[in-house]
Amino acid sequence: MTEPAMDQPQRRRGGERHKGRGGAARIQQLPRRQPRRFFAPMTLVSPDELESIHQASLTVLEEIGMDFNLAEARDRLKAAGAEIAGERVRIPRGLVDSCLETVPADFTLHARNPENSIRLGGDAMVFGNVSSPPNCSDTDSGRRTGNLADYRNFLKLSQAFNCIHFLGGYPVEPIDVHASVRHLVALKDMVTLTDKPFHAYSLGRERIVDGIEIARIGRGISHAQLEREPSLFSIINTNSPLKLDAPMLRGIIEMSSLNQAICVTPFTLAGAMAPVTIAGALVEQNAEALAGLVMTQVVREGAPFIYGGFTSNVDMKSGAPAFGTPEYMKATVIGGQLARRYKLPYRSSNACAANTVDAQAAYESVFSLWGVTMGGGNMVMHAAGWMEGGLVASYEKFVLDCDLIQMVMEFLQPLEISEDSLGLDAIREVGPGGHFFGAAHTLARYTDAFYAPMISDWRNYQQWHAAGRPEAWQKANALWKQALAEYEPPPIDPAVVEELDAFVARRTEEGGAPTDF
Amino acid sequence: MTEPAMDQPQRRRGGERHKGRGGAARIQQLPRRQPRRFFAPMTLVSPDELESIHQASLTVLEEIGMDFNLAEARDRLKAAGAEIAGERVRIPRGLVDSCLETVPADFTLHARNPENSIRLGGDAMVFGNVSSPPNCSDTDSGRRTGNLADYRNFLKLSQAFNCIHFLGGYPVEPIDVHASVRHLVALKDMVTLTDKPFHAYSLGRERIVDGIEIARIGRGISHAQLEREPSLFSIINTNSPLKLDAPMLRGIIEMSSLNQAICVTPFTLAGAMAPVTIAGALVEQNAEALAGLVMTQVVREGAPFIYGGFTSNVDMKSGAPAFGTPEYMKATVIGGQLARRYKLPYRSSNACAANTVDAQAAYESVFSLWGVTMGGGNMVMHAAGWMEGGLVASYEKFVLDCDLIQMVMEFLQPLEISEDSLGLDAIREVGPGGHFFGAAHTLARYTDAFYAPMISDWRNYQQWHAAGRPEAWQKANALWKQALAEYEPPPIDPAVVEELDAFVARRTEEGGAPTDF
Repeated sequence: MTEPAMDQPQRRRGGERHKGRGGAARIQQLPRRQPRRFFAPMTLVSPDELESIHQASLTVLEEIGMDFNLAEARDRLKAAGAEIAGERVRIPRGLVDSCLETVPADFTLHARNPENSIRLGGDAMVFGNVSSPPNCSDTDSGRRTGNLADYRNFLKLSQAFNCIHFLGGYPVEPIDVHASVRHLVALKDMVTLTDKPFHAYSLGRERIVDGIEIARIGRGISHAQLEREPSLFSIINTNSPLKLDAPMLRGIIEMSSLNQAICVTPFTLAGAMAPVTIAGALVEQNAEALAGLVMTQVVREGAPFIYGGFTSNVDMKSGAPAFGTPEYMKATVIGGQLARRYKLPYRSSNACAANTVDAQAAYESVFSLWGVTMGGGNMVMHAAGWMEGGLVASYEKFVLDCDLIQMVMEFLQPLEISEDSLGLDAIREVGPGGHFFGAAHTLARYTDAFYAPMISDWRNYQQWHAAGRPEAWQKANALWKQALAEYEPPPIDPAVVEELDAFVARRTEEGGAPTDF
Repeated sequence: MTEPAMDQPQRRRGGERHKGRGGAARIQQLPRRQPRRFFAPMTLVSPDELESIHQASLTVLEEIGMDFNLAEARDRLKAAGAEIAGERVRIPRGLVDSCLETVPADFTLHARNPENSIRLGGDAMVFGNVSSPPNCSDTDSGRRTGNLADYRNFLKLSQAFNCIHFLGGYPVEPIDVHASVRHLVALKDMVTLTDKPFHAYSLGRERIVDGIEIARIGRGISHAQLEREPSLFSIINTNSPLKLDAPMLRGIIEMSSLNQAICVTPFTLAGAMAPVTIAGALVEQNAEALAGLVMTQVVREGAPFIYGGFTSNVDMKSGAPAFGTPEYMKATVIGGQLARRYKLPYRSSNACAANTVDAQAAYESVFSLWGVTMGGGNMVMHAAGWMEGGLVASYEKFVLDCDLIQMVMEFLQPLEISEDSLGLDAIREVGPGGHFFGAAHTLARYTDAFYAPMISDWRNYQQWHAAGRPEAWQKANALWKQALAEYEPPPIDPAVVEELDAFVARRTEEGGAPTDF
């Protein structure tokens, strides 16, 4: 099995600007690499407190149980030792324990370009694009319903920015493609316009089975190799509190049975779908995530699984969901403690509730990134472009977030401590009262010593004022247009395209997938 | 000695809105309290690497030395064992070690209102207002030179917001008051318009001596009590690299000899006044901070001292200072490791380089707060209102930052883990498929379950659009005006005012302080 290259402490990215075909300066960004957290993740609750959350979750599963809306799922769970009463499934502690023994602690999610395969788990971190909003917006044309043209643009941006490691779903829903064949059109685009690992939705048997086949064709591998190498992942959202719907359960069964990756993410908003306390919401999140874990392992021992956390609070006054809040940060950090207790890869998000790319959008996002980075997150969904609590994919926010992600990646680069970097010779050379601009130590390192942000405007006030007082979103606006203009489709074997086309044509002719779910 | 009340894990602030004298809803904010970090600060370098920074700093002090531009300072250092050659002072390792033995690990900085006294050191955190910009701005009237009216407004805001624990200096320089008496006017305002601990500038003997006397009068205490209880602090900025100017050294001598608090903060911009590597800049920062520490302890053993860190990088293209960068974050965290190695209170900042209250201002500030909060900072200077790398105090940024500080304070509140908060009964009550809006557990806690931000707009897009698409700075604009309208001067003994007035009148008649420094 090919292992993806992990990030090593390295001197520096190539600092010079790359020249595009026209000779103009291309967008300067970090090279493709997967960051690692080299420091211990933070903890907010003691081992005893963590245990009490864990035990309460097991009590929920054993005593209250969860509704599983698919007979086949209930049958499989019953055979594994769960107690069934109607749709209610009660999962004994021992079954959870045994499933925790078979689930892998980490795994590789394979991309059709092997250089883009990602490691999930341990101290590795990866960032994905915004996924699943019904709307999109840019500051030129405003807010609009998702459509195929914007869908493709966001795929191109996701491919263009190296800090986007995977496709977490449709960056915006292409509503103008009929729901019966949307997944075929969308996933074919995903495989051809990008060469990074990707996601397919669990919306009934046909869609997820098609998704698995498209992932296989895209990589040009056999069914047997696909089964050895997870090449697709699917997010399972529980219907909180304590329900798993049939299309989601079908997704787990199809994916796990073929050793593809499942991420169960309960969306447990404290005070709405979960108890009003963060502790209580975490109990529910954890119970639901563990129930999903059990389902995967009952289908196939060793099937890859990602622990998803998405606990936040609501606005006390309106009931509206809130993100990037102190409560969200705490839930994210403690979710990481739970995932590490179970030795599972941990998924979180870069979330915000802002309606526009203003200071709020930035602070909610950085607070989210703070929580997931310090809390030991491995997989950051919605890392670029998410706005309005997930209702909008924003072009400007996408680029702004890429800059934020790159800053986090730079923060995760270990600091070089060596005789040379300690700089005693430079300090000797300059001495009291001098300056380091012309020191040999400076000149040798100056051009690539620091991260060069894409958005930040560090001009002084006079220069900035003379330039028309631009705000961050304006720079972001220019950059996404440049990224689209510079976009080049990743190479793909024409035989793969042919096979993809044939598959999509056949499945389209067959009518695609039912739309009555 | 009165110890200030420290923050205890507590159920909640009073959630209800306070009514002003007119009956209108007052600004809802957190109550006065001093947060504590209850988790371990993060580390970015190993103990061995930290030791190599420490040792390199000692080599700088012992072998290269620093220029001390005041004969009295050099004489005192010589008597303590330093080697003097002209203005150059070389400090042996042993002298640093012995000074580290006498300096206190933490201390209380006393306010004239004892409830506002703050603990510095250990796991306590405090936040101060923006300090020392020559300009200020608001979005109605734009950018202007600092003046007394704006100075007083910012003092009122610093008093009005509970999350501002201390006054770090003049929130904007009142340029329209003559420099000879500016400190008298400004410090008298500080004592009367606020009742929090404050700072005086070390700009020659007269100013700092006047500042100490004003602090004493403000508290209504004897000289002897003042000497027992640090009641004023002064920031000493080294003239990096490796110089300490006469006015600053005079400040240390006057302050430390009376047991008042000194914070030495080298402003070590990597690539400009310090080596281009963050490691090298930290070696220089650390050498200069330790030199300042030695000066305080040579003046008076046990004098309170704060380790200040302000290492950042410059823009590679222009040489302009940058803040809230990944390099700044790393320097902040490692600065904390150094301060803890020496068992010293640690000062950092909430810094940004943005020219306007946009996404950049927010993300650079939250990255700064991330570094200082996780890195073990105790005292956060410039925590509210700092813009343009310190050239502007912004009214809107002030309020925005107060919201960010409050979010950090909430993040620092331990999560309650109890049978009640785990919410099993609520989960039992609601069960699969229900919702928690009406659950007894929710109703009992709903109104004050979560932090209610001052700025964040969580309305949905339609409501927000109908309201005129306000951005974060617009809410901040409304709030600072409301805070000024609601401002009430803190009570003060008329005898204290009388003594202050008499002192200021006498010193003004004497001509104030020389302006030829």
